[in-house]
Amino acid sequence: MISVVLVGTGNVSKLLFNAFLTTKEVNVKQVIGRSEKKLNYFKKSAHTSTNFKKLFKAEIYIIAVKDDAIIEVSEKMSSVDGLVVHTSGAIPMEALKVNAHTGVLYPLQTFTSGKKVDFKEIPICIETSEKDDLALLKRLANSLSDKVEVIDSEKRKILHIAAVFSNNFTNYLFTAAKEICDDNELDFNLLKPLILETASKISDMTPRQAQTGPAVRNDQKTMREHLSLLENEKHREIYILLSNAIKDTYG
Amino acid sequence: MISVVLVGTGNVSKLLFNAFLTTKEVNVKQVIGRSEKKLNYFKKSAHTSTNFKKLFKAEIYIIAVKDDAIIEVSEKMSSVDGLVVHTSGAIPMEALKVNAHTGVLYPLQTFTSGKKVDFKEIPICIETSEKDDLALLKRLANSLSDKVEVIDSEKRKILHIAAVFSNNFTNYLFTAAKEICDDNELDFNLLKPLILETASKISDMTPRQAQTGPAVRNDQKTMREHLSLLENEKHREIYILLSNAIKDTYG
Repeated sequence: MISVVLVGTGNVSKLLFNAFLTTKEVNVKQVIGRSEKKLNYFKKSAHTSTNFKKLFKAEIYIIAVKDDAIIEVSEKMSSVDGLVVHTSGAIPMEALKVNAHTGVLYPLQTFTSGKKVDFKEIPICIETSEKDDLALLKRLANSLSDKVEVIDSEKRKILHIAAVFSNNFTNYLFTAAKEICDDNELDFNLLKPLILETASKISDMTPRQAQTGPAVRNDQKTMREHLSLLENEKHREIYILLSNAIKDTYG
Repeated sequence: MISVVLVGTGNVSKLLFNAFLTTKEVNVKQVIGRSEKKLNYFKKSAHTSTNFKKLFKAEIYIIAVKDDAIIEVSEKMSSVDGLVVHTSGAIPMEALKVNAHTGVLYPLQTFTSGKKVDFKEIPICIETSEKDDLALLKRLANSLSDKVEVIDSEKRKILHIAAVFSNNFTNYLFTAAKEICDDNELDFNLLKPLILETASKISDMTPRQAQTGPAVRNDQKTMREHLSLLENEKHREIYILLSNAIKDTYG
């Protein structure tokens, strides 16, 4: 059984904690956090502490905190032994300011507070500073997911950019669509089945094969008409840029 | 039972045909198309013809052809009696060049050849030129779906624009993400669970609540780094425009 100390009390920490509880491979010995109140969540099944000086000994320390707190938190753990990993897509492994061996355990998913997740289907990207630690981190990751990939910091950064396009920017387009509906007293709910099917199509075909609409048909008349109806300047700019990108890519 | 003649042999026509076969409300008497070969698909359960002069009498004629063929097809049906509807999101009802009453039956979904659909969950937007025809078209639409909405041509056009943002542009972002992965020898499949979850989140919360990422946090450092890593000029432009839109909207 792999002994783990979990640092952080947010969403990712909770989800990892619950997932580890259901495996026989991992024992979360301790959870560290700044807030006693937030630590309550973990108390039933692990020791908890707000004091970094009382860190337990463990094989793996998982820092599951916000990106901009990772360096600061790792500095407080400079003297631990074992393997210290963070869970971020954007932060390089080298940001971990510890004397111990380092690594990354990045679950490639968007996590929502209060919503259950099935880690089995979530790709987990791992990396270690020392080759010898890879087998241990892989064992831990495999206890969560069937899709474990060894990906170095540079490639993880690229993957994170692709994730920004797939998730953050996509979600913004949903926002724009909702604004267009709201401005015209149309119910955004009408678009939800379309949104789900758009994502689901990608399981069966490439985005290239799935591309439809006026831009890929180069249907100038419809595009001109859409632009004449779009009142929001931001929406117009996006319409023009993305329509041109579609035309350039598939034209 | 509502008698229907279906015009067109493409994807939407096939899907409507199959859906009507399973209802007791609708009888598809005839299918009209240009290609004998494509009409074969329908022969088992309806009369078929390539000749518009041999149109059967029916209560509703459904023109399910490509947008740019709707006017031309409707001109060939100028002498029919009954209600003539098309199935397009972008084309106004007035485009139908017939002496009969007109209407629209627009299923708001992206249809993929060979992929089954459950019409029950698909919003169907309807409209008729004559108020008296609305009940009939509503009955037909209700035989397909639980989500029938009366929406006029002007609002349908706006809804179609919102659909372009939700589907066409979103799918293009998946294309860009795949290009970023391919250029860096990363497996695009790693992003598929994220893409599915991004769409699924919208069922439970508004896009505003679901927005995450460096732009909404105004994390300048990460955004600068992403831009320095994006080599494709088109991707860079999209990154800048959409990040700014997110900052403006949620900042």
